[in-house]
Amino acid sequence: MIIIMERTATKVNIQRVLDLLKENGFKVRCNEGEVHTVIDALGDKTSITPGRIAAFEGVKEVKVIREPYRLASRDSQKEDTVIEFSNGVKIGGNNKPVSMVGPCSVEEDYEGLLKVALAAKEMGCQFLRGGAFKPRTSPYDFQGFGEKALQYLKRASEETGLLTVSEVMDACDLDMMCEYVDVLQIGARNVQNFKLLQAVGRSNKPVILKRGLASTIREFLLAAEHIMYQGNRNVILCERGIRSFDSAFTRNVMDIASIPVIKKYSHLPIIVDPSHGTGQRYLIEPLAKAGLVVGADGIMIEVHHDPENALSDGKQSLPIPMFKEVMARLNKFSESLHYEQNCLSANVN
Amino acid sequence: MIIIMERTATKVNIQRVLDLLKENGFKVRCNEGEVHTVIDALGDKTSITPGRIAAFEGVKEVKVIREPYRLASRDSQKEDTVIEFSNGVKIGGNNKPVSMVGPCSVEEDYEGLLKVALAAKEMGCQFLRGGAFKPRTSPYDFQGFGEKALQYLKRASEETGLLTVSEVMDACDLDMMCEYVDVLQIGARNVQNFKLLQAVGRSNKPVILKRGLASTIREFLLAAEHIMYQGNRNVILCERGIRSFDSAFTRNVMDIASIPVIKKYSHLPIIVDPSHGTGQRYLIEPLAKAGLVVGADGIMIEVHHDPENALSDGKQSLPIPMFKEVMARLNKFSESLHYEQNCLSANVN
Amino acid sequence: MIIIMERTATKVNIQRVLDLLKENGFKVRCNEGEVHTVIDALGDKTSITPGRIAAFEGVKEVKVIREPYRLASRDSQKEDTVIEFSNGVKIGGNNKPVSMVGPCSVEEDYEGLLKVALAAKEMGCQFLRGGAFKPRTSPYDFQGFGEKALQYLKRASEETGLLTVSEVMDACDLDMMCEYVDVLQIGARNVQNFKLLQAVGRSNKPVILKRGLASTIREFLLAAEHIMYQGNRNVILCERGIRSFDSAFTRNVMDIASIPVIKKYSHLPIIVDPSHGTGQRYLIEPLAKAGLVVGADGIMIEVHHDPENALSDGKQSLPIPMFKEVMARLNKFSESLHYEQNCLSANVN
Amino acid sequence: MIIIMERTATKVNIQRVLDLLKENGFKVRCNEGEVHTVIDALGDKTSITPGRIAAFEGVKEVKVIREPYRLASRDSQKEDTVIEFSNGVKIGGNNKPVSMVGPCSVEEDYEGLLKVALAAKEMGCQFLRGGAFKPRTSPYDFQGFGEKALQYLKRASEETGLLTVSEVMDACDLDMMCEYVDVLQIGARNVQNFKLLQAVGRSNKPVILKRGLASTIREFLLAAEHIMYQGNRNVILCERGIRSFDSAFTRNVMDIASIPVIKKYSHLPIIVDPSHGTGQRYLIEPLAKAGLVVGADGIMIEVHHDPENALSDGKQSLPIPMFKEVMARLNKFSESLHYEQNCLSANVN
Repeated sequence: MIIIMERTATKVNIQRVLDLLKENGFKVRCNEGEVHTVIDALGDKTSITPGRIAAFEGVKEVKVIREPYRLASRDSQKEDTVIEFSNGVKIGGNNKPVSMVGPCSVEEDYEGLLKVALAAKEMGCQFLRGGAFKPRTSPYDFQGFGEKALQYLKRASEETGLLTVSEVMDACDLDMMCEYVDVLQIGARNVQNFKLLQAVGRSNKPVILKRGLASTIREFLLAAEHIMYQGNRNVILCERGIRSFDSAFTRNVMDIASIPVIKKYSHLPIIVDPSHGTGQRYLIEPLAKAGLVVGADGIMIEVHHDPENALSDGKQSLPIPMFKEVMARLNKFSESLHYEQNCLSANVN
Repeated sequence: MIIIMERTATKVNIQRVLDLLKENGFKVRCNEGEVHTVIDALGDKTSITPGRIAAFEGVKEVKVIREPYRLASRDSQKEDTVIEFSNGVKIGGNNKPVSMVGPCSVEEDYEGLLKVALAAKEMGCQFLRGGAFKPRTSPYDFQGFGEKALQYLKRASEETGLLTVSEVMDACDLDMMCEYVDVLQIGARNVQNFKLLQAVGRSNKPVILKRGLASTIREFLLAAEHIMYQGNRNVILCERGIRSFDSAFTRNVMDIASIPVIKKYSHLPIIVDPSHGTGQRYLIEPLAKAGLVVGADGIMIEVHHDPENALSDGKQSLPIPMFKEVMARLNKFSESLHYEQNCLSANVN
Repeated sequence: MIIIMERTATKVNIQRVLDLLKENGFKVRCNEGEVHTVIDALGDKTSITPGRIAAFEGVKEVKVIREPYRLASRDSQKEDTVIEFSNGVKIGGNNKPVSMVGPCSVEEDYEGLLKVALAAKEMGCQFLRGGAFKPRTSPYDFQGFGEKALQYLKRASEETGLLTVSEVMDACDLDMMCEYVDVLQIGARNVQNFKLLQAVGRSNKPVILKRGLASTIREFLLAAEHIMYQGNRNVILCERGIRSFDSAFTRNVMDIASIPVIKKYSHLPIIVDPSHGTGQRYLIEPLAKAGLVVGADGIMIEVHHDPENALSDGKQSLPIPMFKEVMARLNKFSESLHYEQNCLSANVN
Repeated sequence: MIIIMERTATKVNIQRVLDLLKENGFKVRCNEGEVHTVIDALGDKTSITPGRIAAFEGVKEVKVIREPYRLASRDSQKEDTVIEFSNGVKIGGNNKPVSMVGPCSVEEDYEGLLKVALAAKEMGCQFLRGGAFKPRTSPYDFQGFGEKALQYLKRASEETGLLTVSEVMDACDLDMMCEYVDVLQIGARNVQNFKLLQAVGRSNKPVILKRGLASTIREFLLAAEHIMYQGNRNVILCERGIRSFDSAFTRNVMDIASIPVIKKYSHLPIIVDPSHGTGQRYLIEPLAKAGLVVGADGIMIEVHHDPENALSDGKQSLPIPMFKEVMARLNKFSESLHYEQNCLSANVN
């Protein structure tokens, strides 16, 4: 930890910070610069938080050296986390990227959902996704079909063998949801709903954690840490766009670079969601490819059997025939990347 | 509602949108511009959402004319909402701005809390605030003292007559919290935790709703709408800074202009929180004044009996002696504003 | 143009807007909604700007339907702009993506520059880039070697046959620069330096226009319009990252989706600059690939013969051996994309 | 300077950084933490830039301790800069806040300008502002009347005794402009047009420097440093809003807190421009007050004799009668603040 004192800090100010640190078992060194005094402090940050030091008179800034997440960091685990499902599907590491597809919301028409699931199966996807509980900006919008939707998902899963993903919005629904789905999803708006993070952290299902609209990469990894800290290490991160100053053409700005950054600092798998990231059907394919080429472990895409009549997010959903074409190209692209990467690894060894 | 078609939209594309609108009871008019066709649609937006129309082939943009919140809008209620408490304290309308002060977290030391409460009382504040459940970015930070903290708050309230405010993070805690506190607070990170919004919407306590780090003004008012839609009309908005590209000197950027904007479009009271908005002790007084001068109905300020040993947010908390000085100046300032405003009103009438 | 009146607009307010529009030759239609009156106005926007209408009492918002850039728009030119150089190199359309590489700043050591140029040539790149005049945030940083640098660039160009690119910061240098370089570059900080845009718009050299840190896509295209409006149609756009709330791991956020968006709305070529976009050496290759896979017409990469001693931007420059490896993979990747795209086109035809 | 090495940095990586620093005369200390090695380096940063160190293999981050601007910093000058004009008007320090008012653009109608100037004079304003050269996002918008406008400004100045302010967009116009106006303005879009900053830095006129849409506070002060470094110390900063994710109700977000932050770190005067900051007439008065209450040394407000026919920015201009009312209240407010501040100072002494 490094403590930078204000230009105007007095000797007493400095001494008080030094005393605090020493009392808490820190090894300290004090460097008097031309303008600022800087204190190096080496010790256990859990005994005293940076915020507490920052509160002392005359402190300008407290700079923490170590990344604040621990379980999510490559500092604590060098190898990629690989999540394996009962049917043998794996996410992370050197495994082929997975595909998660389905409607934004599961709707009343089971046949529609089944059509999507069959197309997904046909195209080699591994996961069927669909919302049962929908976080909606406006209370006047469709809020989801609830448990009925989960039953549909499970039924479609049984007919196709696909694994299922659905968003959990309320810790109270957790036990019920775990009976129906294979993967829990935490939506972008709940990325700092810490009670919910803790609840899924105590479940035994893998969790997809979506990046919040205003989450820094560090905060995103700390949100994962909240889950992992409760015992659940099977967290799959999901880049789905952040808020920027320009939303005229895309709902959000996809931070594609965050994927290799996170790969460098964390061992957790990360997937990419170009449907929410852009909000535009025509951008799904190029942005899915962009995510894959920088190393994403999977893609999540909205597909609807009839997007023009979808109860939510139709604009960013692919209709089935278009999905099949896009998915065929994505599969081919993904394979060529995977092939090349394996050649590279082989050469290295 | 206005539908702007893509330059490349075909006659069939346009006709399909027109048909959809007519089927749903909209009155439509189609304007063919030089480049774009534009459709005016007049009717009940609840029968068909803008998103559904946007999903149609060839639609570039759907522009909704009416602000999407209804209960929170001045369209539905022209007069300011005034919230009155059992002890006669009022928030909103032409009432004198209120002050809510207290520590970020209520800590184990009841005497410390009481000192703050007594100082608050002495300075004419109406509310004692203090966290019992703390949303913390890192799982390694202090998470709050829970129900014990609420008991302390209540005890301090009984000793001083102050009303109490505390943040609710989990709908499960709601009944318990309602026994202890006078006002529920929804934190910035939960501004789109819709389950929680709905839960407080069904309670009978006034709710302080903090603006999210990435909430647009419209989304902020829609979050209020979620609460109001469940029946609870006593929502107090709180501007506490938004995320920007510069966090070197202040944690967030306070959007001071949002206060008069919201006053124009909504009847709900709005307060200002310069402690969280800036994260810096020396900015609390000037930004509180800035909030008051543009029309805020109250201020929320963090005060701690010993900020250097606070378990959270010490950097942005005022120690008691400084609080008294600042509060004295804020009271004087607030009074001069209130006096002038009343003179103005008198002149108008 | 659509004019949305405030809820509180009076009949007189509305009539005055209607009169203004009619006087200026607009065909108008007035739709009285439940809450807002909306005016459709069809006519020549150059006779009366949206801003002027917005200034009228009671106007809430003026929505312009047509994209405001004209020459840069696909409305005015459907086919991709292709820029051809005297040596046959082409940028844009179905041509293979080009590569522009070189040091951030050209330095005193000509041999160093030549090494980079030779490596660039060897790897099949078409352009040598290098700064002679450097826009630097601090006056204490290196400001570039000026004309000397341009002479070096030209000499390296003569030795290798590479085309050259350098940034122009001052219209006064323009004539001089045009004697040395093949392509002028406008830096991100000058994207709204309209005098400079106009000046290069009157030159006969192709111009690379970098997106500003806070440029919306629309503003970016309007900046191109400023150049084109003066007669120079050879504008090459460059996505190089925008400012976001998170700069802990990357200098900027690369808006990869902006590339296919711009391809849809404009016929101008667009390249991608992952060096400035990320500020990190290890992110250059993945983000270059991300740019290429979504359709970029070229890449710009910083390469230095000795990055640790570079006078600027060493952190984001590739040393020559690493550059060769990266470029080999990028070439292979680019070829595979190009191959597939041509197959697709062939199938379509 | 503090250098934080990557977790993965090797001993050789660390040694090379230490060698570099020592060779450049730095005193260094190396702290091996549990995860990261941290190097403290004390010495003259001009001999080696942080960027150069960052380029070394294994360096994660270089943290500069001292604020990078020098002349603009309170480190180099403790007392507030006060700028005095030939007619005795002063800006900065304990002087009463000044007012700068006038049309966005000076237009063909001299009588209109004079009306504004006379109203400004009547209301006790000190400066008449008006654009002669207009930076416009679109080339199709009005670009200003050029020298003619400057002649009008001067004439109005001679008739009223007001000082004049106008924006310079091109260094070539500088000599000519200096003959007409008392204060040069650098617009937000040119805040990093370093050639222009240097040019005005060599002139002998005070310069108003507007904050850029994406300028951090540090970059803003560094832009001032560019001017000061050339010799001109009379820089007046101007907060006029920054770009945020929400532009539905206000053009920009005014960063009101930046004013007391800048006051703390710099001795330069700073004014506030609520017209550009909000883009809305009804927000000018409240945001001007917010700026004044946090310590702004002046306000800049757009006033037009006929806003509905203004050639630019009518929406955010006050018509003369409204201006008089607003200005009367602002004067009164400003006086009450000034009075109180002087009382405070008196008490302190």
